[in-house]
Amino acid sequence: MSLRDVIDARRDRYLEWLSQACSIPSLAGNPQGLQAMVAWLEGILGPLGAATERLAFESAPDVLLAQLGGGERTVLVYDHYDVQPIDPVSLWNQDPFAPALENGHLYARGVADNKGDLVARLAAFEIYREHFGELPVRLKLLIEGEEEVGSPSFPALVERYADKLGADGCIWEGAGVNHAGAPELVFGAKGLAYLELVCSGLNDDQHSSVSVYAPSPVWRLVEALASLRDEDGRVLVEGFYDDVVAPTPEDVAALETLPFDEGAEKARLGISEFVGGASGLDLMIRAHFEPTCNIAGIHAGFTVPGASKTVLPKQALAKLDLRLVPEQDPEDIVAKVRAHLQAHGFGDISVAALGLEHPARSPMDSLIGRAAAIACESVYELTPAVSPLMIATGPMHPIAHFLGIPTVSPAGVCRPDSKIHAPNENVAVTDFLDTIEYTVQWIRAFATL
Amino acid sequence: MSLRDVIDARRDRYLEWLSQACSIPSLAGNPQGLQAMVAWLEGILGPLGAATERLAFESAPDVLLAQLGGGERTVLVYDHYDVQPIDPVSLWNQDPFAPALENGHLYARGVADNKGDLVARLAAFEIYREHFGELPVRLKLLIEGEEEVGSPSFPALVERYADKLGADGCIWEGAGVNHAGAPELVFGAKGLAYLELVCSGLNDDQHSSVSVYAPSPVWRLVEALASLRDEDGRVLVEGFYDDVVAPTPEDVAALETLPFDEGAEKARLGISEFVGGASGLDLMIRAHFEPTCNIAGIHAGFTVPGASKTVLPKQALAKLDLRLVPEQDPEDIVAKVRAHLQAHGFGDISVAALGLEHPARSPMDSLIGRAAAIACESVYELTPAVSPLMIATGPMHPIAHFLGIPTVSPAGVCRPDSKIHAPNENVAVTDFLDTIEYTVQWIRAFATL
Repeated sequence: MSLRDVIDARRDRYLEWLSQACSIPSLAGNPQGLQAMVAWLEGILGPLGAATERLAFESAPDVLLAQLGGGERTVLVYDHYDVQPIDPVSLWNQDPFAPALENGHLYARGVADNKGDLVARLAAFEIYREHFGELPVRLKLLIEGEEEVGSPSFPALVERYADKLGADGCIWEGAGVNHAGAPELVFGAKGLAYLELVCSGLNDDQHSSVSVYAPSPVWRLVEALASLRDEDGRVLVEGFYDDVVAPTPEDVAALETLPFDEGAEKARLGISEFVGGASGLDLMIRAHFEPTCNIAGIHAGFTVPGASKTVLPKQALAKLDLRLVPEQDPEDIVAKVRAHLQAHGFGDISVAALGLEHPARSPMDSLIGRAAAIACESVYELTPAVSPLMIATGPMHPIAHFLGIPTVSPAGVCRPDSKIHAPNENVAVTDFLDTIEYTVQWIRAFATL
Repeated sequence: MSLRDVIDARRDRYLEWLSQACSIPSLAGNPQGLQAMVAWLEGILGPLGAATERLAFESAPDVLLAQLGGGERTVLVYDHYDVQPIDPVSLWNQDPFAPALENGHLYARGVADNKGDLVARLAAFEIYREHFGELPVRLKLLIEGEEEVGSPSFPALVERYADKLGADGCIWEGAGVNHAGAPELVFGAKGLAYLELVCSGLNDDQHSSVSVYAPSPVWRLVEALASLRDEDGRVLVEGFYDDVVAPTPEDVAALETLPFDEGAEKARLGISEFVGGASGLDLMIRAHFEPTCNIAGIHAGFTVPGASKTVLPKQALAKLDLRLVPEQDPEDIVAKVRAHLQAHGFGDISVAALGLEHPARSPMDSLIGRAAAIACESVYELTPAVSPLMIATGPMHPIAHFLGIPTVSPAGVCRPDSKIHAPNENVAVTDFLDTIEYTVQWIRAFATL
């Protein structure tokens, strides 16, 4: 009986695990749901012979640390048990916490991000023990509950419990499988500075006739924002690019072979060309190694479409998310944005940093990286799509930089159309089973390389 | 028994009229309330000997035309029976349509804008007839029901019924009494172009990581807005100021004597200085003879204060209200804004004109203007504050320009703290009684000048 036959024979058992996990509303603001999810994980991990421990940090949801297996090498496995909010609920075809199996896909909030990977890994551990014997590596599962709100406590928690977390390599939550069907291997993440700008200046909203002599907070905010970027999207904040590191020849080589269907992506977005007309390698380098300054939101005054109200708003608010690249430092970037506003006469605009994450990079030729690549061979038809870092953000920095553990985000259940962070999040059952098989394979590869 | 004694003796009767009028929710979107208000007016006007007629125009609320009195001269009296919306209701101290008398003030939606003036005028007509005999002028009351939504039908309605509306002068809805207690006489109004700008460009809201290569509609809207004005607030739309007329020496003379408490206004607004540091005559000229370009609202993406969501919004919306001065033409201004956006590479941003009103001016030395000034003498202690035009907008253009009737907006129930368009709108009972007396006085003055 092949490994895949064993997995296929237990399909229903592990889909039941995944359904159970996805029926628990473990999302921010629901401490009961978060705790229930930790308890569910402990219930699965106990029979696998794992020693579990809840790592506490201030008021953050407990982080679960589970240790199992043996052998010379230790691998840290990072996942998170929290999920995105379910809004807008009306766009779901079913209750987001009542998992539904349809056309070979399981639909539920969190099924792709990140319960699918997490449960597939747990299933792989069980199968490994029953099929091959004791796990040949020491596994440390580190499962946090704040990833979807920016992991605010994770860096300090990793620092506090550093002596428990040592490992020879780290397997991150799964990157996934790309448009073309190739397994992904990703060795880093962009950082983030999430800023809220507020411009005030009037006691109350005013009849707009007085705008002829009263200064307008909205106009000031618009002018301040316009001073941050030029028309080509280049950030004008002084020193913004000072710490940006150019891609290495190895990075460029990886990006050259990274599949990216430009036509499909343009069609998905509904655009005719990418920023600056970029394409090919130029586009890939820009996407991975350029920071961004995005307006995630802006609001002031009266905004009912099609209706009129003449008001001079007392206040205006904007949300900026700046995706940072190595070696930009989020605190330094916030200071530079504040200095820029001050220097341009907008020192009265308040800047609150609502979220800060460091960018992260890990070597692509590490032992864990090679194990993750070799493991793809027997599971996936296509060779891996290797990326130096993802264009999104994740809390990889405390592991990859503070602890210095080589890290890779490997193949997993996610596809580009898995609708993570959106209604009708889903995972193909075959991708779930592939991830179980892939997990068994990287454990073997890491033990024997 | 003096005129004032007669008025004071009937205080309760006319406050009851005003309370009845203010208990009717005659606001846009409530056709039943609007119709009830017309019926109530007809019920008061009938016993005054008025011939009433409902002027219809397409789907607009009926405009009430009431004719009464006799004599050589005819005066058109403009009022409106609709009121502002009541939002935010929670900030009212009482039901906005349950008038409450407290500390010598009547509180209710519409009591200041404009039912207080309207009812005071009706009361004056009754008192005149009972105290002095038949009204010595022909009065044509023109009372519309769309003023608070920009009088969209009023210009065409005036054109259709022009032959019924001829008059020697027009008394507009009341300007009011200023900070210092001086009665106001205002001879014009700014115009308005209310625009809704929408910038689209993506199929859906996106995870903001793709902002590194996907164009941002919000950034484009911010850049487009920033191109419309310089930092000093001067509008950069090509040709925007072409038709602006400088104040005449008479205008400047009026503005020189116009009381304006700069300190009180700054304190009310919560600002330390007016735009450009203007003060004195310079401030007065700017306020009355400069057009504005105000952002009444802007919205895109995620805007919950204190919370984070990293999104690249698919669309952004802005509302602009441009207050126009003589001889700017609202349709021409809209065309110029569109041409400006086109010329600056923002031709894809849609511009919807949600409201257009012409600026209006009327001579300050007209017969009706002089009658309105003389009538102040016996009612108010201070001499009138004469203004060439108000810094706000009103539908005066069809009367003052299309029909060519000299027009003045005179003293009335409004004070700067009457909270028109805001919660807890109110009128002092003494101001209401003053307006009754003042109405009797301008009728006499206009008949005999």
